[in-house]
Amino acid sequence: MKKFVSALAAATVMLGAAPAMAQFAKAEDAVKYRQSAMFMMGQNFGRVAAMAQGKAPFDAKVAAESAAIAETMSKLPWAGFVAGSDSVGSTKAKPEIWSNAAQFKEAAEKMQAEMTKFSAAAKTGNVDNIKAALPGVGGACKACHDEFRAK
Amino acid sequence: MKKFVSALAAATVMLGAAPAMAQFAKAEDAVKYRQSAMFMMGQNFGRVAAMAQGKAPFDAKVAAESAAIAETMSKLPWAGFVAGSDSVGSTKAKPEIWSNAAQFKEAAEKMQAEMTKFSAAAKTGNVDNIKAALPGVGGACKACHDEFRAK
Repeated sequence: MKKFVSALAAATVMLGAAPAMAQFAKAEDAVKYRQSAMFMMGQNFGRVAAMAQGKAPFDAKVAAESAAIAETMSKLPWAGFVAGSDSVGSTKAKPEIWSNAAQFKEAAEKMQAEMTKFSAAAKTGNVDNIKAALPGVGGACKACHDEFRAK
Repeated sequence: MKKFVSALAAATVMLGAAPAMAQFAKAEDAVKYRQSAMFMMGQNFGRVAAMAQGKAPFDAKVAAESAAIAETMSKLPWAGFVAGSDSVGSTKAKPEIWSNAAQFKEAAEKMQAEMTKFSAAAKTGNVDNIKAALPGVGGACKACHDEFRAK
């Protein structure tokens, strides 16, 4: 009975982490969904990061808009990490995402929190604020990728 | 001079339609960006449409959340339609997107408006409201695809 309740709790945790997990017609769609969200986040974040690093001219309006999209995107990949999609198509998702779900959720939430700070910094229109928020996001991306994404 | 001003105005219109068009490192990224946004929109919209059509059990919370994401996504593909990306990779974008930019913009805006109505309908939690908003979105998708997407 204890074992059953634990399994149920684990299932509930997973549902909490990915509310739409049962909503994809096939696992390939779930993989494509999370990859799409990650790609769109990366494009928008990367654009602003390039400005903050002096690799592109600073445009406060574009920076604020792009960071806001990156923030929105940071909330979306998780629904795509459905159980059983760790070896589907071109995914680099490691099995630890599912076997260590609580740590994955924590890492994902850390990144979202950092991206929210980053977006808030971009809204100020001050490139120094964006610069200051950059390492937080970069560190959260890297920490999660190191642990949960195959090379 | 008149010709120069016209060209400048046309360029401005395109910039207005796609504010981030000069922001992709390569055309492939722009194509992948718009395809990612379209895919994520389709997944979320399709989930709610299936509920409205009785093909999936109605879940008011999931419907409202998914429709809201579809609405957000409806605003994003356009930045990816950068000039010169009509024959890049797996794109089905027709040259008319650029040669007939004003009509494309109108069709894109029509779809966004219908998706906003659809999302508002889903927020009511009443499946009949969602059903009523469905043809508007479907029609706007189809009209733009018929005109601007290759088979």
